[in-house]
Amino acid sequence: MYFDDIEIGRTEESAEIAVDRDEMVDYAMRNDPFPIHVDEQSADATIHGGLIASFGYVVSLFFRLIHTMEGNEIDDEAFLGALEWKVAFRKAVRPGDRLRVRAEVTSKRLTSKGDRGVVTARHDVLNQDGDPVVVIDVVSLVLVRPTTASDDRA
Amino acid sequence: MYFDDIEIGRTEESAEIAVDRDEMVDYAMRNDPFPIHVDEQSADATIHGGLIASFGYVVSLFFRLIHTMEGNEIDDEAFLGALEWKVAFRKAVRPGDRLRVRAEVTSKRLTSKGDRGVVTARHDVLNQDGDPVVVIDVVSLVLVRPTTASDDRA
Repeated sequence: MYFDDIEIGRTEESAEIAVDRDEMVDYAMRNDPFPIHVDEQSADATIHGGLIASFGYVVSLFFRLIHTMEGNEIDDEAFLGALEWKVAFRKAVRPGDRLRVRAEVTSKRLTSKGDRGVVTARHDVLNQDGDPVVVIDVVSLVLVRPTTASDDRA
Repeated sequence: MYFDDIEIGRTEESAEIAVDRDEMVDYAMRNDPFPIHVDEQSADATIHGGLIASFGYVVSLFFRLIHTMEGNEIDDEAFLGALEWKVAFRKAVRPGDRLRVRAEVTSKRLTSKGDRGVVTARHDVLNQDGDPVVVIDVVSLVLVRPTTASDDRA
């Protein structure tokens, strides 16, 4: 799959993953040990009424889910890398939540070089109620399908 | 530290952390197993010439580094949460890189409610050469210092 093959409006859903409390807290203990992520008692007393996930842990689950999607299979040589992410935080993630990703290609444009393009895909990370917990716009650089000798003759 | 106490232009640096190859690859095996993150041989043959970190792993290190910064100590009750992140990808992260975060408050404004404000802080994640690997603008909601009875009388 090259830049040429990417269709604006194409949507795709990932598999679903359940948020494991122990793994969520372990992650936060190692990387983001705010009380709201690791200390049950103190988290209970907040407006959240319990532990919520570090965004770093949500990103980890986001990557896991991305790997369950077919559309992820842009040819290794075609995907030149991510340029930008825009993340909007919507709702806390809690132990036991079941998350999935719904992705939609929202725009694409050729760069001035002509051999590559910029593709934006909106990724809604949804919980079991269908509510977005975070929305991530991923802007990537993707190669145009190389012209072959036979194309040149056409 | 409340909204009132946050100064535009204030900068701060985190401690430094070295990127551990094994932990970096373990992270990717579990969460983001693209060949470029986990398969040395295949990564050697790319333009990167070796393994590079998953962005999820970079986010994990970012959170670790944030916890080494004093300015992070916004009062628990004052920090109402992140609203947005804008991430610009600049350079690959490799095993052995030494990363640190330089943060700068770039803007703040009161919301119409008046009891809270929106604060934007730019976070440059720098490597050992001083090159940014990612730049993360974090937009947060922060409470204004509550008015006390004595303030009312003033």
